[in-house]
Amino acid sequence: MRLSRYFLPVLKETPSEAQIVSHRLMLRAGMIKQSSAGIYSWLPMGYKVLKRIEQIVHEEQQRAGHIPMLMPTLQPADLWRESGRYDAYGPEMLRIRDRHERDMLYGPTNEEMITDIFRAHVNSYKDLPLTLYHIQWKFRDEVRPRFGVMRGREFYMKDGYNFDLTKEAALHAYNRHLVTYLRTYERMGLQAIPMRADSGPIGGDNTHEFLVLADTGESEVFYDSEITDLKFGDRDIDYDSVEECQGVLEEFTSRYARTDETHDEAEFAAIPEERRRTARGIEVGQIFYFGTKYSDALGAKVVNDNQEQVPVHMGSHGIGVSRLVGAIIEASHDDKGIIWPEGVTPFHCGIVNLKQGDDEADAACEQLYSALTARGLDPLYDDRKERAGGKFATMDLIGLPWRITVGPRGLKNGVVELTSRKSGESVELTPEAAVARIAEIYALT
Amino acid sequence: MRLSRYFLPVLKETPSEAQIVSHRLMLRAGMIKQSSAGIYSWLPMGYKVLKRIEQIVHEEQQRAGHIPMLMPTLQPADLWRESGRYDAYGPEMLRIRDRHERDMLYGPTNEEMITDIFRAHVNSYKDLPLTLYHIQWKFRDEVRPRFGVMRGREFYMKDGYNFDLTKEAALHAYNRHLVTYLRTYERMGLQAIPMRADSGPIGGDNTHEFLVLADTGESEVFYDSEITDLKFGDRDIDYDSVEECQGVLEEFTSRYARTDETHDEAEFAAIPEERRRTARGIEVGQIFYFGTKYSDALGAKVVNDNQEQVPVHMGSHGIGVSRLVGAIIEASHDDKGIIWPEGVTPFHCGIVNLKQGDDEADAACEQLYSALTARGLDPLYDDRKERAGGKFATMDLIGLPWRITVGPRGLKNGVVELTSRKSGESVELTPEAAVARIAEIYALT
Repeated sequence: MRLSRYFLPVLKETPSEAQIVSHRLMLRAGMIKQSSAGIYSWLPMGYKVLKRIEQIVHEEQQRAGHIPMLMPTLQPADLWRESGRYDAYGPEMLRIRDRHERDMLYGPTNEEMITDIFRAHVNSYKDLPLTLYHIQWKFRDEVRPRFGVMRGREFYMKDGYNFDLTKEAALHAYNRHLVTYLRTYERMGLQAIPMRADSGPIGGDNTHEFLVLADTGESEVFYDSEITDLKFGDRDIDYDSVEECQGVLEEFTSRYARTDETHDEAEFAAIPEERRRTARGIEVGQIFYFGTKYSDALGAKVVNDNQEQVPVHMGSHGIGVSRLVGAIIEASHDDKGIIWPEGVTPFHCGIVNLKQGDDEADAACEQLYSALTARGLDPLYDDRKERAGGKFATMDLIGLPWRITVGPRGLKNGVVELTSRKSGESVELTPEAAVARIAEIYALT
Repeated sequence: MRLSRYFLPVLKETPSEAQIVSHRLMLRAGMIKQSSAGIYSWLPMGYKVLKRIEQIVHEEQQRAGHIPMLMPTLQPADLWRESGRYDAYGPEMLRIRDRHERDMLYGPTNEEMITDIFRAHVNSYKDLPLTLYHIQWKFRDEVRPRFGVMRGREFYMKDGYNFDLTKEAALHAYNRHLVTYLRTYERMGLQAIPMRADSGPIGGDNTHEFLVLADTGESEVFYDSEITDLKFGDRDIDYDSVEECQGVLEEFTSRYARTDETHDEAEFAAIPEERRRTARGIEVGQIFYFGTKYSDALGAKVVNDNQEQVPVHMGSHGIGVSRLVGAIIEASHDDKGIIWPEGVTPFHCGIVNLKQGDDEADAACEQLYSALTARGLDPLYDDRKERAGGKFATMDLIGLPWRITVGPRGLKNGVVELTSRKSGESVELTPEAAVARIAEIYALT
């Protein structure tokens, strides 16, 4: 993309309404614009990041055999009356009445609707196991929306639902989701720690939240420092294997890690003092096993191999896709702006032309642009007639991991400069070598 | 995908509530499930088709330099009060009040919101031309929703908005959109005819609707039969060229083609009688130039090169993404079921194992599945223990363009059968040749 043809409305001033760094940087980098309290438009660059995150979530869910679909944003109130949650949910549920005076609501989650789909179509244990998921806009009418997309009202979430014949099978689905989530977050450059959590309005006993450590997190967290040494890495997991998935769960949840909701002072005190950590965390996902809570309420049963009707065991599993955009920035930025992890960056690299209008510099930039594009990469070429200082400031603010700087002086020696946003280090390379280096970096992510 | 692990709830009976063939077939093929009047869940196979259509729309918009972003589903009422449409829109607008008693609405379209974004960030003619678009869920509270996704309440639409300094530049944007739409529909296997239309609540003088001819269409249409001979084909268009885009507009709109809303009996009578056609059509898109209607109302101005503040010229451009799923089926089906055009098919081909459990047949199917997947193709393998008749009926119903049939008899001679869903013709081929043939077909689409 050529910046002269793009829509990237960066702000010079820091918006006064933004209390936390990700909100400030998303506004300054022209990623979002508030349309009303807690509701945002995703401007082109913000939209690109949102889509990269969504894509990673899709890939990791489908790798585990989970099946994508899509439920609507508006739901009939009657379904929620069946489960008893229509009255229980409180004022965070946005209630709507249509032109025929029918009660509806903007879905905050989809347990009822997916159970309704299941009961309409599945009758036999032979069709199990089954995990369906969707990524859709949700609404929670927060009394005080704040922190930008981190605590918005209209938010984008992946929610998945497993249906299994037995508790054991459903716990395998739970473990399998934990594995997919660990992979998902690591691909986004995040360390998200599974912590034992409270189930809230979803219900159930088994539940873990995934938390990213950050000073601005809304939860206080307590953990054994050994847990931050764990990496999922590039393991090859057989998602059908109960043992493998159980092994990962044990590895990642056997050490103490809790939010303030479930914190136990006595257990925490048993950890050697030098490994006890207290910090703040941002919740970026949660998994639940809640058994037959919804299948009992809505009558979702299958015939087992003894010809008996039994309610299915279920769980649900959420990842906050729009919230992750903010969480990644909270975890990865500096004074100059955002530092995108390579897995989610909106553009693979920036090209800065130090002397726009100079025939040789322009030609070299065009060549770099074509060569990168031909390799399947997506560069952002700053082709505006601006001073070098302004171009560098914009690139630092929007946080592309790599920048190629092209100027007449370097070109005399046949080189351009390749700079890492994270380390700030630069190397001089021929343009061809710079392209090859960028291609190599992204082939590995 | 292996069918034994998929969720494809096909129905044996024809649902009585469905009045038109696309609605019936989408329900029978397990593509959608109604959750309330005019609101549907997209089951896995329906979701795949929806996403293929969305992807084609994205590719063709971006090919022309239009920039993707995303606006929220809920909008503040105040923005619509500024344009005067809040009161004018009538009961089709779903009005919502949040917990703080603020008036909101579920957006049926986004002229106001995009103009608000524009006025907040763009001040100079130097930032023009600009075309932004998004693909987002919309809501129209139809008094009698019907025909499945063809006339639903919650629907998925691409809507784009151009901002230009002059009327001439905005008319170029109009023409450019017409070109992108012709390409878009043809890639989906549709002939959509641009017809002079009525602007309705959007406003403006210049507008064309794109109509697909089908007996179940809601509009009566009148046209010169020469128009159906036109093909856009694989032309290489320079979207920046005013002449090229204007040329395409003239070619595709110079012959008589109107909906009942704009039909002119006298003009129609002037066409030689043997070329006069009356038919029914389904609207699948519409483009508008409405000048400064919204920029005047909302104060969206830029400074021109004489340092004068002038309102921008705008247009908007919509494609009904979810409606297209139904429209394509209306245009392409037979008594047995759907016939997907290759551009939008949910799976590239089906594999039918005639003797599930037979070692040789199973191994041959697995090999085909791997070979197709390795070529980047997405097959659906019917690996259920069902009779051949049932498997064929399912494949015909769900309408994949190509089917590979594998059975012990053919394998003895080293062949499988490749069948076209459209023509019904079969050829015997080695498995390797069948894979190569399928790969070749999709490389060309």
